[in-house]
Amino acid sequence: MLVPDVRLQLALDLVGVFVFALSGGLVAVRAGLDLFGVLVLAGVAGLGGGVLRDVLIGAVPPAGLSDWRLLLAAGLGGLVTFVAHPGLSRISGLVRVLDAAGLGAFSVGGALTALAAGVAPLTAVIVGTLTAIGGGMLRDVLVGAVPEVLRRELYAVPALLGSATVVVASRTGHLSTAVAVAAAVLVLAVRLLAVALDPNAPRALRRVDPEVGG
Amino acid sequence: MLVPDVRLQLALDLVGVFVFALSGGLVAVRAGLDLFGVLVLAGVAGLGGGVLRDVLIGAVPPAGLSDWRLLLAAGLGGLVTFVAHPGLSRISGLVRVLDAAGLGAFSVGGALTALAAGVAPLTAVIVGTLTAIGGGMLRDVLVGAVPEVLRRELYAVPALLGSATVVVASRTGHLSTAVAVAAAVLVLAVRLLAVALDPNAPRALRRVDPEVGG
Amino acid sequence: MLVPDVRLQLALDLVGVFVFALSGGLVAVRAGLDLFGVLVLAGVAGLGGGVLRDVLIGAVPPAGLSDWRLLLAAGLGGLVTFVAHPGLSRISGLVRVLDAAGLGAFSVGGALTALAAGVAPLTAVIVGTLTAIGGGMLRDVLVGAVPEVLRRELYAVPALLGSATVVVASRTGHLSTAVAVAAAVLVLAVRLLAVALDPNAPRALRRVDPEVGG
Repeated sequence: MLVPDVRLQLALDLVGVFVFALSGGLVAVRAGLDLFGVLVLAGVAGLGGGVLRDVLIGAVPPAGLSDWRLLLAAGLGGLVTFVAHPGLSRISGLVRVLDAAGLGAFSVGGALTALAAGVAPLTAVIVGTLTAIGGGMLRDVLVGAVPEVLRRELYAVPALLGSATVVVASRTGHLSTAVAVAAAVLVLAVRLLAVALDPNAPRALRRVDPEVGG
Repeated sequence: MLVPDVRLQLALDLVGVFVFALSGGLVAVRAGLDLFGVLVLAGVAGLGGGVLRDVLIGAVPPAGLSDWRLLLAAGLGGLVTFVAHPGLSRISGLVRVLDAAGLGAFSVGGALTALAAGVAPLTAVIVGTLTAIGGGMLRDVLVGAVPEVLRRELYAVPALLGSATVVVASRTGHLSTAVAVAAAVLVLAVRLLAVALDPNAPRALRRVDPEVGG
Repeated sequence: MLVPDVRLQLALDLVGVFVFALSGGLVAVRAGLDLFGVLVLAGVAGLGGGVLRDVLIGAVPPAGLSDWRLLLAAGLGGLVTFVAHPGLSRISGLVRVLDAAGLGAFSVGGALTALAAGVAPLTAVIVGTLTAIGGGMLRDVLVGAVPEVLRRELYAVPALLGSATVVVASRTGHLSTAVAVAAAVLVLAVRLLAVALDPNAPRALRRVDPEVGG
């Protein structure tokens, strides 16, 4: 079993934090929030998944709260969004693309970080998937939206695929930077394909009752 | 003070995960989510409380992310719901019954797991209660509903009662499998009674202002 | 670098827990919740930030679940609210004032607790800020409201200021009880000033699209 490269983990983390921060900033802009709301939501979306990962594997305090490079990446993502956000009509699509890129970087990076912390392979796959979907879930819940991961196109599945790929590669001695990057790109591609095709995964019943819960 | 049996903890965990996963799946079906949404919400509802418990007592990575039996129970709960869910009109009642069963299994199992991890009795009672209410809270928040635990019938109280019962039993040397199972059934019974009677716990004021927060 | 006084940390925690519990209870009253809902929301708002802090710095089980004084403060806050809440028309303003007081106590107390746990200064600033904003975020999300911290007046900034002040004071050897209390009062004052003046922080665009997320 090959131990993941620390620089590779950091690079994937930086990419994931930045693109998820952009997505959080855009969601904040669309919700009419001001500069501080944009920065907070960028921080939550960018750093939330990694903080969740680190809490789950016992790596506290989480890197997302102690590594100034990650904090800077999240802050930059928020600022860039605030200054240069596109028209509202294009935001929804852009959020999805950025979200897909973050899904790729975090599902692979999260699984590698979990492996490096010594957790079992199955746990690394789950933790990697949660790293990828955690920030976006927090982002959506905070603005009162049902998280992307519960909606109808494939979302958790590509993340699960990316995490599983690098865990299997590591266990079988095939892990390399090229494999990790390829896995992240695969996640991005599958997710974007899912958005484009909107395959209408089987659904049990249409919603007829707006009241939800209990 | 008697140390809780590991097999008993696992049995309570499996029951709790499965019934909460069913409840999560049903809430997802009612919200019109597709297969993946159903599986994700089943996983969140089934495993959320136990993951919260393990994070709070420092048992990381949490069993809910590393024990394949728990992951399987959650996945099965989601699949069963998706394939065999009842008509929408009956879902609300069924969610409450399953939720009550999970409340019983998790309030007792959570307290026993916390005790086994060496926390103080008071902490075990609180952690057990949070184990029981955590998954359902996450489930409801994710679909945008006010969690069951904040609504008007007794919800947290039966869970608190179940956790306190086994902690007291353990401290006084009366803990046994029979006592633990009886405590879980007691929670279930009290909760169902509360739902059936709808005792209208004292309420300060009716809602007159739809805007909530700050 | 001066190590923070344990009694000072406890005092700030008790004040923060109590005032945030009052705020949680008031939000529950306004949402029409009953006695148990009021107590749960008071507990979540009062203890949530500190529990988050302790999980992030690895101090588990969190003090908020094991120290009976903190649990008592939260319970008292809930009871006081339930018995003696004011008319609904005055609740919104009162929530903000209590929230501001909690922000001051927790941003300072959270940073001191994090420093005492041995985390790096930057991390202590972030953890202190999260301690201050965490309970209110949970409170608002549970009743389906967009958290205060994402709205338009200065909210996270005063908390960040309070945390940074005591961390810098500790690093430069100027930390004392007087400095800590002054920092907490400063946070309170800045936050209330922000509410009063409503400075309309720069906003990218007005909301035109009610659909948020994804």
